[in-house]
Amino acid sequence: MSLTYGTHEVRIYYEDTDHSGVVYHANYIKYYERAREHLLGPEKLVALWEDQGVGFVVTKVELNYKLGARFGDVLEIRTTPSLNSKYRISFDQQVWRKNDPSGKALVLGKVEMVCLDRDNKLVEIPQQVQDELQSKFGMKV
Amino acid sequence: MSLTYGTHEVRIYYEDTDHSGVVYHANYIKYYERAREHLLGPEKLVALWEDQGVGFVVTKVELNYKLGARFGDVLEIRTTPSLNSKYRISFDQQVWRKNDPSGKALVLGKVEMVCLDRDNKLVEIPQQVQDELQSKFGMKV
Amino acid sequence: MSLTYGTHEVRIYYEDTDHSGVVYHANYIKYYERAREHLLGPEKLVALWEDQGVGFVVTKVELNYKLGARFGDVLEIRTTPSLNSKYRISFDQQVWRKNDPSGKALVLGKVEMVCLDRDNKLVEIPQQVQDELQSKFGMKV
Amino acid sequence: MSLTYGTHEVRIYYEDTDHSGVVYHANYIKYYERAREHLLGPEKLVALWEDQGVGFVVTKVELNYKLGARFGDVLEIRTTPSLNSKYRISFDQQVWRKNDPSGKALVLGKVEMVCLDRDNKLVEIPQQVQDELQSKFGMKV
Repeated sequence: MSLTYGTHEVRIYYEDTDHSGVVYHANYIKYYERAREHLLGPEKLVALWEDQGVGFVVTKVELNYKLGARFGDVLEIRTTPSLNSKYRISFDQQVWRKNDPSGKALVLGKVEMVCLDRDNKLVEIPQQVQDELQSKFGMKV
Repeated sequence: MSLTYGTHEVRIYYEDTDHSGVVYHANYIKYYERAREHLLGPEKLVALWEDQGVGFVVTKVELNYKLGARFGDVLEIRTTPSLNSKYRISFDQQVWRKNDPSGKALVLGKVEMVCLDRDNKLVEIPQQVQDELQSKFGMKV
Repeated sequence: MSLTYGTHEVRIYYEDTDHSGVVYHANYIKYYERAREHLLGPEKLVALWEDQGVGFVVTKVELNYKLGARFGDVLEIRTTPSLNSKYRISFDQQVWRKNDPSGKALVLGKVEMVCLDRDNKLVEIPQQVQDELQSKFGMKV
Repeated sequence: MSLTYGTHEVRIYYEDTDHSGVVYHANYIKYYERAREHLLGPEKLVALWEDQGVGFVVTKVELNYKLGARFGDVLEIRTTPSLNSKYRISFDQQVWRKNDPSGKALVLGKVEMVCLDRDNKLVEIPQQVQDELQSKFGMKV
């Protein structure tokens, strides 16, 4: 059986907030990136970059802000990947407050990525990444 | 005659880049915010916040990344506002490299904002902001 | 028996690095802040702020950069607090790479903090914070 | 006659502040970097990096925080360089509020830098940088 989404925990520090009292809106994109890296495995991403010169690059971001997170909050980023083609992955990414009985998403988002080689040329999503996402999330191209 | 878009210049420093060699993708949202603030007038925004307790809040962001900016680049953010209703402004925001004869946009984006009062209640876009945008950009609700 | 230092783990993401290939030098101050918050307890800091209106403010930072951290590194921040007076805490904070047999510190630093109330007036370090640091680290004023 | 210090203007946006209402303390290090780059000339720094593979690296930072800057503030960074040796420059860097009759510095700081080549080996401060700083600020090693 496959997962519906992967989860990644993010704690909100001073650095994350702005003077309006909530998390600065650009920062959710950082949390999304952290969550995706843990989904794929940071060591594997480093190895892909260093050994094969292949890196993931964001091509599209969509964000819908519903509620603001605050200093001290612990957020849960829920990430569902899907392979659009051999060249393009998209990630549905939601931000929830952890242990929050009210149960509302704070931010809804979608991120599309491609893989580039050292010369910035588009390459296929590495087979090992495709395989792993398929075994974890049951995805097919 | 009214403007097509407002421009704001952004210089790329070390802080803006990441180890892939180009500007970190979340940072364009910061440049967008700076450009919008200069469009509306930072002093007016401060006054709105301090005197009337009205602040602008981002509800939606869409970004399409085309080309990466690099350390030392000087970018031009081109911002075209439009009033969707008395409660919602949207901004078409593009990132171009300044003095670049090749003439391609680096990032295309769209940002939607609303106004909230001190209790986080939705309020109308202040009339003075509506008037100013209309006189500069010829917008009508 | 008391601890010599508290430890806090930090993983290095794209957002942390700059185009020179290593972590951007200002970011270590963020990691220091995260480490101090975990030393004192984020929930307690939130409660201090919300219930008593008391917040910690940095008055001094000293940093010595020895080696650069890279994308994918897992760092360990080692923090040793000391109470200089009833009004001033200082933190010796070092950055090490985790599971690194070469055993060299990447960054050495020192941070001084005071407590302010809602009117930005200097107040004593809350007794509960003093007590906890003393019980964990054997500190005395 | 030579200058006492170079000035660089920084405007404070949402991104710069934190939930305490003032500028997040790590961000002043960013403003310091921007000010140093403009002192030396961003184009020259880019050329040094691309043509000669020589980059400036921060080895030491000291900061004393006196007063907090706020959203909408326009700050003036005042930078006085001095050549400690052929291998080491230090910069005295102060943060002032622009057009502020009360006339108090917000942050006092000192930054030391060295030059590294592409292999991270210490090299002399490039002669052209030494010459320029000497002609502008009357410095001698």
